[in-house]
Amino acid sequence: MMIEAPYLLFLGEAQDPIAVKTARGVAQWRPENCVGEYSLEGATISLGLPSLSPAAATARGAKTFVLGLANAGGTISDTWVEAILEALEAGLDIASGLHRRLASVPIIRERAEALGRRLIDIRHSDAPLPVGNGKKRAGMRLLTVGTDCSVGKMYTTLALEQAMRTRGMDAEFRATGQTGILIAGAGLPIDAVVSDFISGAVEVLTPDAAPDHWDLIEGQGSLFHPSYAGVSLGLLHGAQADALVVCHEPDRPHMRSLPYYALPSLAQTIDVNLAFARRTNENATIVGVSLNTSSMTFENASKLCADTARIYGVPCVDPLRMGVDDIVTELEGFPRP
Amino acid sequence: MMIEAPYLLFLGEAQDPIAVKTARGVAQWRPENCVGEYSLEGATISLGLPSLSPAAATARGAKTFVLGLANAGGTISDTWVEAILEALEAGLDIASGLHRRLASVPIIRERAEALGRRLIDIRHSDAPLPVGNGKKRAGMRLLTVGTDCSVGKMYTTLALEQAMRTRGMDAEFRATGQTGILIAGAGLPIDAVVSDFISGAVEVLTPDAAPDHWDLIEGQGSLFHPSYAGVSLGLLHGAQADALVVCHEPDRPHMRSLPYYALPSLAQTIDVNLAFARRTNENATIVGVSLNTSSMTFENASKLCADTARIYGVPCVDPLRMGVDDIVTELEGFPRP
Repeated sequence: MMIEAPYLLFLGEAQDPIAVKTARGVAQWRPENCVGEYSLEGATISLGLPSLSPAAATARGAKTFVLGLANAGGTISDTWVEAILEALEAGLDIASGLHRRLASVPIIRERAEALGRRLIDIRHSDAPLPVGNGKKRAGMRLLTVGTDCSVGKMYTTLALEQAMRTRGMDAEFRATGQTGILIAGAGLPIDAVVSDFISGAVEVLTPDAAPDHWDLIEGQGSLFHPSYAGVSLGLLHGAQADALVVCHEPDRPHMRSLPYYALPSLAQTIDVNLAFARRTNENATIVGVSLNTSSMTFENASKLCADTARIYGVPCVDPLRMGVDDIVTELEGFPRP
Repeated sequence: MMIEAPYLLFLGEAQDPIAVKTARGVAQWRPENCVGEYSLEGATISLGLPSLSPAAATARGAKTFVLGLANAGGTISDTWVEAILEALEAGLDIASGLHRRLASVPIIRERAEALGRRLIDIRHSDAPLPVGNGKKRAGMRLLTVGTDCSVGKMYTTLALEQAMRTRGMDAEFRATGQTGILIAGAGLPIDAVVSDFISGAVEVLTPDAAPDHWDLIEGQGSLFHPSYAGVSLGLLHGAQADALVVCHEPDRPHMRSLPYYALPSLAQTIDVNLAFARRTNENATIVGVSLNTSSMTFENASKLCADTARIYGVPCVDPLRMGVDDIVTELEGFPRP
């Protein structure tokens, strides 16, 4: 799944920051890929990018019109259809993170076909995939895992890519979720893959590479989440990770969306992830803990990170507040003898 | 996914017992659902059922023409298409375990539409499914788990259903694979489900039930199989099993299809499955071990079962040689106080 950059980010009539979370992620992590934003009447949110019509964006080199926004009803409203058609006419492909497929709207499908444009539904995976084979691949791999969903796995992985590249290391973010795919312009929506092929999909996503190359794989879910653990385990086996970073939000009261399920402890999460990771890479090791401490004072957060680092013997940071340099220093020691 | 019984089993030009394995499973476990078999010229295999044309089968009450056979190329040969059309004309629905969808052959799709017959592709899941919610359901559940794929999970589950019903217990086999679905006439092909919905699919497959009702859930794969562990974990979480039966083939040299992966030990398999099962049902327990001892003398097999039972403190049987009565006796003690 490849999305051609640069993008024009579509914000619809957004009045709620949550609705444009995906588009904001793209603008934050790949500003060089965003020529502008396009809003409809009534929108009150901006990402601070130049406001451009599809035609103006094409003139500045845009290749893809990105619908990186949530839509309550799951439908594609008429005003959006109009904007999509305008983008197609202006020469742009369309990439959408909506559940509903773009081609399910006849006029969009017909216009795209007539104009020879691509409709890319990043929530759906139609690529033929192999069953995982567990064969050792060359190059190094890092996977973010977590105590729960939405504890900072994508953010941590992207922060690692940025910090590693700053040090001249050969590192590439490998996206497994919709926001990640729009940011990277490529990837595989692992939760949309047929379950027989989860680990096989990850093997395809992170193929053989040079010995000093790092694939930084965006983790999903948690081995302890009753809704999504299967995805997390297939991802862990398929990744054959040399290095794991464990992500956690200390103050979370319960598993996301499941008020009757408590979070696992960090210790449990580390033990179980390591045990399963070693099934496909006997050298798998934990290289860091990443905490989301947004609810804490900086002082308390620093103390918690220091305590956590001492207990588990690896660096512990809040990537947003402290950066991930301490973890990158660990990674410089790879491959370990 | 419901398939209306009774069936006419299609054997094509089969000359190899392996090719008709699925059809044979249906004839073995649900003889009352099989009015006959239908072979083409050149076939040398029979299941011992009456040889009937589709029209003759319809006259005896058949409702569905079952393609429970493997096909090397994955294609649907012309001779098969002819037989399928004949079955449609005779008034039968078609249920197929082939990878290729029946409706992908235009003449089959058109004829079925014109005649108002159903085309049921049991390897594909098109049903809309929910994300798993992990909520406790009423009734009791048993799940077969294993050290590997193809170690007897389906056979053990069906044998338990038979033995429990013989004792008057309220037990129902819940199919998760293609042979199981044809045998039960219903089920969900869990490895064909989109990975986000694995545990949700199992929750749908085994809904709330009477307190003394047992759903006996056909397990798939193994938590230790690098290709399929995600499916196995989603199944384990979604099942909320009260009782687990661990299946194993003692002499197997390596994980199925993966010569470079050793089998986990029984002890490991029990520990890890119990730990994960307890995430969604804190009372989950092991009630038996099922061994495939086909490569051993009966004397050696009996000794191994006795030793295994002593080590793990639960009954251990080879269901094919010794039946599963010892395990059913354990189940009679449920719900445990």
